[in-house]
Amino acid sequence: MLVVMKHNASDEQISGVVRAIKGMGYDARPIPGGQRTAVGLIGNDGGVDAARLEGLEGVLEVIAVTHAYKQVSREWKEEDTVITLPNGTVVGGSDVVIMAGPCAVEGERPIIEVAHQLREMGATVLRGGAFKPRSSPYSFQGLGEEGLRYLARAREETGMMIVTEALDSEGVDLVAEYADIIQIGARNMQNYPLLRRAGRAGKPVLLKRGMAATIEEFLLAAEYVLAEGNHDVILCERGVRSFDRHTRNLLDLAAIPVVHSLSHLPIIADPSHGTGLRSKVIPMARAAVAAGADGLMIEVHQDPPQAMSDGAQSLYPHQFQQMMDQIHVIARAIGRDVVSPLEAVAAD
Amino acid sequence: MLVVMKHNASDEQISGVVRAIKGMGYDARPIPGGQRTAVGLIGNDGGVDAARLEGLEGVLEVIAVTHAYKQVSREWKEEDTVITLPNGTVVGGSDVVIMAGPCAVEGERPIIEVAHQLREMGATVLRGGAFKPRSSPYSFQGLGEEGLRYLARAREETGMMIVTEALDSEGVDLVAEYADIIQIGARNMQNYPLLRRAGRAGKPVLLKRGMAATIEEFLLAAEYVLAEGNHDVILCERGVRSFDRHTRNLLDLAAIPVVHSLSHLPIIADPSHGTGLRSKVIPMARAAVAAGADGLMIEVHQDPPQAMSDGAQSLYPHQFQQMMDQIHVIARAIGRDVVSPLEAVAAD
Amino acid sequence: MLVVMKHNASDEQISGVVRAIKGMGYDARPIPGGQRTAVGLIGNDGGVDAARLEGLEGVLEVIAVTHAYKQVSREWKEEDTVITLPNGTVVGGSDVVIMAGPCAVEGERPIIEVAHQLREMGATVLRGGAFKPRSSPYSFQGLGEEGLRYLARAREETGMMIVTEALDSEGVDLVAEYADIIQIGARNMQNYPLLRRAGRAGKPVLLKRGMAATIEEFLLAAEYVLAEGNHDVILCERGVRSFDRHTRNLLDLAAIPVVHSLSHLPIIADPSHGTGLRSKVIPMARAAVAAGADGLMIEVHQDPPQAMSDGAQSLYPHQFQQMMDQIHVIARAIGRDVVSPLEAVAAD
Amino acid sequence: MLVVMKHNASDEQISGVVRAIKGMGYDARPIPGGQRTAVGLIGNDGGVDAARLEGLEGVLEVIAVTHAYKQVSREWKEEDTVITLPNGTVVGGSDVVIMAGPCAVEGERPIIEVAHQLREMGATVLRGGAFKPRSSPYSFQGLGEEGLRYLARAREETGMMIVTEALDSEGVDLVAEYADIIQIGARNMQNYPLLRRAGRAGKPVLLKRGMAATIEEFLLAAEYVLAEGNHDVILCERGVRSFDRHTRNLLDLAAIPVVHSLSHLPIIADPSHGTGLRSKVIPMARAAVAAGADGLMIEVHQDPPQAMSDGAQSLYPHQFQQMMDQIHVIARAIGRDVVSPLEAVAAD
Repeated sequence: MLVVMKHNASDEQISGVVRAIKGMGYDARPIPGGQRTAVGLIGNDGGVDAARLEGLEGVLEVIAVTHAYKQVSREWKEEDTVITLPNGTVVGGSDVVIMAGPCAVEGERPIIEVAHQLREMGATVLRGGAFKPRSSPYSFQGLGEEGLRYLARAREETGMMIVTEALDSEGVDLVAEYADIIQIGARNMQNYPLLRRAGRAGKPVLLKRGMAATIEEFLLAAEYVLAEGNHDVILCERGVRSFDRHTRNLLDLAAIPVVHSLSHLPIIADPSHGTGLRSKVIPMARAAVAAGADGLMIEVHQDPPQAMSDGAQSLYPHQFQQMMDQIHVIARAIGRDVVSPLEAVAAD
Repeated sequence: MLVVMKHNASDEQISGVVRAIKGMGYDARPIPGGQRTAVGLIGNDGGVDAARLEGLEGVLEVIAVTHAYKQVSREWKEEDTVITLPNGTVVGGSDVVIMAGPCAVEGERPIIEVAHQLREMGATVLRGGAFKPRSSPYSFQGLGEEGLRYLARAREETGMMIVTEALDSEGVDLVAEYADIIQIGARNMQNYPLLRRAGRAGKPVLLKRGMAATIEEFLLAAEYVLAEGNHDVILCERGVRSFDRHTRNLLDLAAIPVVHSLSHLPIIADPSHGTGLRSKVIPMARAAVAAGADGLMIEVHQDPPQAMSDGAQSLYPHQFQQMMDQIHVIARAIGRDVVSPLEAVAAD
Repeated sequence: MLVVMKHNASDEQISGVVRAIKGMGYDARPIPGGQRTAVGLIGNDGGVDAARLEGLEGVLEVIAVTHAYKQVSREWKEEDTVITLPNGTVVGGSDVVIMAGPCAVEGERPIIEVAHQLREMGATVLRGGAFKPRSSPYSFQGLGEEGLRYLARAREETGMMIVTEALDSEGVDLVAEYADIIQIGARNMQNYPLLRRAGRAGKPVLLKRGMAATIEEFLLAAEYVLAEGNHDVILCERGVRSFDRHTRNLLDLAAIPVVHSLSHLPIIADPSHGTGLRSKVIPMARAAVAAGADGLMIEVHQDPPQAMSDGAQSLYPHQFQQMMDQIHVIARAIGRDVVSPLEAVAAD
Repeated sequence: MLVVMKHNASDEQISGVVRAIKGMGYDARPIPGGQRTAVGLIGNDGGVDAARLEGLEGVLEVIAVTHAYKQVSREWKEEDTVITLPNGTVVGGSDVVIMAGPCAVEGERPIIEVAHQLREMGATVLRGGAFKPRSSPYSFQGLGEEGLRYLARAREETGMMIVTEALDSEGVDLVAEYADIIQIGARNMQNYPLLRRAGRAGKPVLLKRGMAATIEEFLLAAEYVLAEGNHDVILCERGVRSFDRHTRNLLDLAAIPVVHSLSHLPIIADPSHGTGLRSKVIPMARAAVAAGADGLMIEVHQDPPQAMSDGAQSLYPHQFQQMMDQIHVIARAIGRDVVSPLEAVAAD
């Protein structure tokens, strides 16, 4: 941490900063410069509250040099985190993982049907919301535990893994009972009690980036899960808020290589929420894989215009097939692949 | 709701949209135009999922004409919502209400001491966090229930009301037991289970605007509380995320007159979080009152450089006094006042 | 255009809106709804100033249904605009065009040397700034006309086409004399006199998206060029401003399919400015091609640490080669190619 | 400037950074830390291109400690810049200056009429566009030089000073001939040739903040004018782009105290463009004065619904009067005033 002094800061003010730093248990080193002096705080400053120094007399600004996150950083653990799910799906390895399904679970037959289709086309994880966070209290809020049971049956029938969202602590326990991956949605990225509970639930966590979260905040949110002892976190870029509304969100694909350089955690992309428009999902799914995403999360519905939520961004199954065909080639162009361990089994 | 067709949409596609709208139980009215046809959806479309229509063939875009929120809107209730607290403080009336206190409750003596000072200077509601949502899991997270007890003692001694944040459902119950106003923080603005629980807790709710929330989403979040039967919601503008980092957040003061025209709920401003810089708090506090805010929430600490969190944005008590002096004159310039019912009592 | 009335608007107010619309020479059609009335403006409203209607009594909001741009829209011209440059390079066709070179022209030998290298690796258009728009007046501002002459010599020696930026009207004439494509930078996207002059200069124009420009504004800026009779406009996505600073800008790749659906103009991507970080350029270049970009603009420098500007985002030549290898495969995955007409000639 | 090394940077890489800095003519000082080493660049680094260092091996990031602007900074010149106009209006002194008028000059009689009204109500500078930058090439673009002549006549008749926008170099000369203050609009904030020309035109310059400009970029744009020897620059906050569209722009009032602490230049606010909505102009005008603005720029039109541009954000004259009454009280609350030197003359 570097405390930059005003150019006319007095020696007394500089000494004040040095004393304050030492009072916090760190070492301080003044660095005189051409225009002004800076004071370096020596030691791991991850837990230091910059605000305590910013308020001192003569201080211009405080610059964080060390990041506040630890366990999620690549400096902490150099090799990639690789998560193997019970059906053989590997997240964070050389293969690109495909998670797909409807926005919300709408009934038992529909979810099982679409799961069969998706599995045949190469998806190995089934998505589908049982608890839906909706902007309006008057919108459809999901089938709840009933939806979780339908998802579990779809798993039995197809061998696909289940990822579904939990909205609160009780929901985490329920989701952990039925699903293979607990999803924390964008709106809850900084819901710390929820992150902690998910960190103790004994299942991998898929954490979506908040609508206005910096990469730093995104990684710090993941740190909450790791701090509880759960290291199986999958990050998910799903678009950030923009001044333009041509797409529902602005899919920040550069976040993928940025996260890969800062952290060992895998990161996938959700071009369905990232664009909000069916016709833009395929190009952005291709782009995400080309940018190095470890997987995709795609909304697919047998009959999107009849979907109970987010129909406009759901692919038709035949479009999903078209996407898969293109994704295969792109993955190979960068030395990866999109192989389903379920296909291999099926081929036996 | 207006469904705008592409300029070359076929009659069959237009009929498809009409059928879809009727299938949803609404009436549809095609409106031919110079360049293209639009189809109007007749009826209250608050609960209609635009996505179901956006996905239809030939549709260019769907434009919401009615807003999704209801009970919070001024069209639903024309007169201002006025909330009277047990100590006589009135939020949403002609007086500007002052809520002040440290970022976090740090101990019993400090909170009681600062409460006495603030009350004498005209604040009638005491703020102070017992449960702190922190970006890093390694930062100070608050004193928990112990902090709530200290706040309650400060109320006993000073007559000030207490506002403090709840982070999860259990926290809501605990906060409701001790405090007079339950605060929902910016990070939890779209934590719907939390909003619902707060809506059932029997205490007024202070709802902070999310970091990237539109006014529409802000009002919809409040709608969750009202939908549970709790109409005593105080909105709080605390700055939104910006591309510039000269201030911690960008305080959107225009939100104040905008909310006043769309909704009957009171709205206050938090220039401490809104700027993150002590030297900018007073000018922005003045500006908020000038813009028509129904109140202010201000961080004050006896010794900001020693504060356990957010010291850089906390005022010294003498600065708070200076702010109060200026606020009084500004409030009167627009026909309001900053009178403490506690001062009146004290004067007896 | 749709004028939405307040729910309690009087008949007199509705008539006032109808009269105002008719006074502007358009037809008006009131559309009564469940909650409120809207008044449709019939006719091409591209030139209507919404503000004149927004100010009327009883009006809640004015919604534009028709877009303000015309000649750039796909509704005006359905087939893609294809621009063929003198050396056979085709922009907007099935091939992905590669434009590359240093940020700034730094001397005659360096630009000719790098041009030879780039041409061999498949680039057909050489970029290099002679007039540099710099945030600080004290930074290097480019070699001016001397730089243009060096670019012209590089063209003579390699057969590559030249694209370079013009900053003002005189610059446009000078650039048009030496270059094959006139670049208008992001900072000048709404410099209308400059756009008009570029529209009359008789050379194709490469228009970069402004830092905070919506797609609508981007297309309107292009409309200024087309309105002068110049239809050869190449759009360029180069990142927009974001609240996060992990990358210099936020490359909005979804703009590519969005522009392709709204307009017939070709659109390329500039991942160098779009990320500002060398290590992120290749992944985002791949992603841009996968998203459907008609070309790439890439900064390459023989010795980036010695570059006079933007060294941190310039690729080394061997990295450019690696990028080209990957791009080829990705282009083919979506039915395109990256073939240099110069290579074909060279093969003769 | 501080070059932060990766935690595993080798001694050789650290030496490489030291050599590079010395090669640029500065002194370098390695600062070993707990987790990583940083290298300080000693000397005034305003002109150093960070990118040249960011690209070096082992470098994590480069942090600017000194700002790139000089002459605009308060460190360069401590006392406030005060600009006295020929009619006695003082910008940057203790008085709040009121600039008002229509968006565009629409004719001789209307501009003279409104000028008389505004002057009587206390405005001392008349605004009105003769050259209008419009998003669409098909919108009204202003009366040009004819408009300038009408403004000059309004000055003759009322004694008010004239501020009007120039869009290009020729426009600067023309505007400088007729007007008292040359306005550079938000879209041209980074049009450097225009800024330079304005810097040589011999008249004060009013510089509007760009739609997505940071305060740093805003001050650097002003630096272009000062670098030409013109020190009479008035900054103008007029709202930045936001993700929310309830107001046309997001008026960033905190920019006022921020600029006042970083720079000696005066800063005014334009709540008309800053909100785009007539009903929000008065509250935000009050707020701007309360925040410490040195002046206001307000759009006023005798008959806003008939205005040729921006009618929805123009005040009626009686609303302007109401605003002036409130502004007076607020200015006095912070030790300032809103006195027109023209009123004093009139009183003679």
